[in-house]
Amino acid sequence: MSLTNATPLEVAKAARVGSRRLAVLSTDKRNAALTSIHKALADGKDEVLAANKQDLVDANKVAAGGTLSQSLVKRLDLGKPGKYEDMLQGILDVRDLEDPINKTTAKTLLDDTLVLSRVTCPIGVLLIIFEARPEVIANISALAIKSGNAAILKGGRESSHSFAAIASIISQALSTTAVPSDCLQLVQTRDVIADLLKLDTYIDLCIPRGGNELVRYVKNTASIPVLGHADGICTTYLSGDYPADKATKILIDAKVSYPAGCNALEQLLVHISALSTTLPVVAEALLQKGVSLRCDPASLAALSEELPAHSAALLQPASSEDYTTEFLDLVLAVKTVSSLDEAITHINAHSSHHTDAILTLDEATAKSFLAGVDSASVYWNTSTRMADGQRYGFGTEVGISTNKIHSRGPVGLEGLTIYKWVLVGDAQVSAEYGAGGKRWRHERMVVGDDEGVARSEEEREVLRRFRAGKGV
Amino acid sequence: MSLTNATPLEVAKAARVGSRRLAVLSTDKRNAALTSIHKALADGKDEVLAANKQDLVDANKVAAGGTLSQSLVKRLDLGKPGKYEDMLQGILDVRDLEDPINKTTAKTLLDDTLVLSRVTCPIGVLLIIFEARPEVIANISALAIKSGNAAILKGGRESSHSFAAIASIISQALSTTAVPSDCLQLVQTRDVIADLLKLDTYIDLCIPRGGNELVRYVKNTASIPVLGHADGICTTYLSGDYPADKATKILIDAKVSYPAGCNALEQLLVHISALSTTLPVVAEALLQKGVSLRCDPASLAALSEELPAHSAALLQPASSEDYTTEFLDLVLAVKTVSSLDEAITHINAHSSHHTDAILTLDEATAKSFLAGVDSASVYWNTSTRMADGQRYGFGTEVGISTNKIHSRGPVGLEGLTIYKWVLVGDAQVSAEYGAGGKRWRHERMVVGDDEGVARSEEEREVLRRFRAGKGV
Repeated sequence: MSLTNATPLEVAKAARVGSRRLAVLSTDKRNAALTSIHKALADGKDEVLAANKQDLVDANKVAAGGTLSQSLVKRLDLGKPGKYEDMLQGILDVRDLEDPINKTTAKTLLDDTLVLSRVTCPIGVLLIIFEARPEVIANISALAIKSGNAAILKGGRESSHSFAAIASIISQALSTTAVPSDCLQLVQTRDVIADLLKLDTYIDLCIPRGGNELVRYVKNTASIPVLGHADGICTTYLSGDYPADKATKILIDAKVSYPAGCNALEQLLVHISALSTTLPVVAEALLQKGVSLRCDPASLAALSEELPAHSAALLQPASSEDYTTEFLDLVLAVKTVSSLDEAITHINAHSSHHTDAILTLDEATAKSFLAGVDSASVYWNTSTRMADGQRYGFGTEVGISTNKIHSRGPVGLEGLTIYKWVLVGDAQVSAEYGAGGKRWRHERMVVGDDEGVARSEEEREVLRRFRAGKGV
Repeated sequence: MSLTNATPLEVAKAARVGSRRLAVLSTDKRNAALTSIHKALADGKDEVLAANKQDLVDANKVAAGGTLSQSLVKRLDLGKPGKYEDMLQGILDVRDLEDPINKTTAKTLLDDTLVLSRVTCPIGVLLIIFEARPEVIANISALAIKSGNAAILKGGRESSHSFAAIASIISQALSTTAVPSDCLQLVQTRDVIADLLKLDTYIDLCIPRGGNELVRYVKNTASIPVLGHADGICTTYLSGDYPADKATKILIDAKVSYPAGCNALEQLLVHISALSTTLPVVAEALLQKGVSLRCDPASLAALSEELPAHSAALLQPASSEDYTTEFLDLVLAVKTVSSLDEAITHINAHSSHHTDAILTLDEATAKSFLAGVDSASVYWNTSTRMADGQRYGFGTEVGISTNKIHSRGPVGLEGLTIYKWVLVGDAQVSAEYGAGGKRWRHERMVVGDDEGVARSEEEREVLRRFRAGKGV
């Protein structure tokens, strides 16, 4: 990793050149680089924590001045028990994931001795902009190297000493490996970001990890594609038939377990038939947890009648903005709907297309909801907080995407890859085919075990029998 | 299809609303709409050709004034024998392709009764900008409906009468089907494009089909993602061991069979060992076809010595711009390289990452090239002109992408889809898992036959045996 003061153009060009060397390294060589980084960061723990202490001292001064929140200061602290070890373990976890590149994902026989394969490969050069948490740099570096991508990293100012210490250690570690050190570059000043976002000749994808303001700035400035989400306005639709105990369990998890998360619940749609049955039970539990409810007239009337003991502070009328707001706090907008269609239409118009759920016992209703809602993740009878790469089984995630192209929802290693078309022939040419000429065969082929596709032993056995049967 | 004079915002909003209705239509209903469009356009042939004649009259007037080329005028003519029928057949071909949406492409058991599926779905609303050829509107409309996407279409001015006639017929045909007519809207004036390109809340993807200038304008203006290619600068690397007859066959096809195509060859890299052996044979054949060669000093010296009969008009020294130019004509840049690495480095720096080929008998050399070259399509011993959706077996293509995300190379129906994550549970919540709680199972599941995945009878049989063996 270079800790660079080069110009944005120099940074991007060097990353591009490095990326091509990294892209052709074997799985073993990329994994060995991660092993080296892990060891170097384990050995350098004291050094990193000393730098981190400096960041904390600076941050506490700023916090005392009132321009930085205490919760942000806490997130900077790498010295909390277990945090550094978690960061180290994360590198090994990524190393031990299946290699996402050089997999053949489709294969077609175009003609005799003319075979077309679709093979996964790295995207190229990533620009990753993230906020303060210093351990993110290690996680992102591991994901980039594992997926064969070069990365230009810009971290939050508040962690600059920690970042510099980690970057210097990673840089030294990489110099002993096959990964060119230009493949990971940390830029230190914020003023280079605008320039980098325009370098679409050298940088292939930008992933901003941070708040709404950062993401919007990046989306509006970049001429390179951006993967991420600006908002997480997640909704759950409670139908009339769903048991109150399960609804309560799900909605408490969705709203209360981590209100600052992008997958936290921000809106509850209630079918009119649940207003005086399930809703009061759910609302009572939410109110007990300190959640304030911003209600439309129908739900406010029902709750005021059923739960007269609660103060107006927690039971409030909703404004129209409440249905387009990411509260990131113990606040929930509640709205009554009279049909499934109304719920779907409201969600498609108001949610941020991140994660939306339905609670119902009726399969047909659920299926209509899952098909009709245009969001990255759509759930039936579970909590929106499930939207997370680790929970989805990706091992780790680089972020959550509300994009409609490339990668949607939690983005793991696979989201950092693309493919190339590899065509191997024996001097066949295009003009030989078509009207009056040779005919295309266009036969789907079975991908071989040696072509990078992960299969279980059982699947391999089935494939062997299949091929034996076909005489392949 | 609406032939609209609405504002860009109204157009985009209506398309978005329509897209959600289209997205949940069954395969049969989408196919039935294509059948209706086909019949209506067959019945309306005289009407369309009359409108097309008007376009031709107008275009010939402009051509007489010198501001429109005769070759462009020819491309406008829908009355050429077979052209209208090809357009009609194209609609049925798209209808009969496999449905690309509602396919489960991955399935994971997160925990008992908690199943995560990745299901393909339409992207949403497409903005497709294309140049003059009037038959494209029928092809694009068919691709959009088949893939469940709404589309806003803007065609070239020169075909405006033809477009209007076709749009009106498609609109009437759709009104008898389940596809909302707002799902296909033709905008007529160029001045709305700039506004549409900013409406990223309602439009998900822009596909410009046309020349370099159009694509660059779109990429620079749009805040919505753009899929396409500005240039097709394709290169072939001729190594020293490849037979001259096969090399000649391939290179003539690549350069001469359709020089105006984006997959036509623009650069030939020659290994130094082939300068006085294979290159003269290949060059002689190219020169005979009228190709002028722009050569670096080494290749120019070799060819001047070996082929003294040829005039300086066809054998010229290359300028450095010749290695970054898309000639779209019978011109070829030639450059000598002394190693495979030099060839790969030149291609990665100078090609447009569209399609690049190597000609060699050596497998290790070929594999290094295929891995090292960072292009959408990489070929071994065949012609760059193979880069085409129909040739790849996609049935048809919406364009060719040099993007590094989402879809790369020829883009068929699959490139017009994305996926959503569908999670079905029974009131499991996130806080139950992790430290001290329940453990994730994260078991890969076999996708069922009823989940939209296309399988051959043989594959189904294998799957049945596999499941029987597992007791599933």
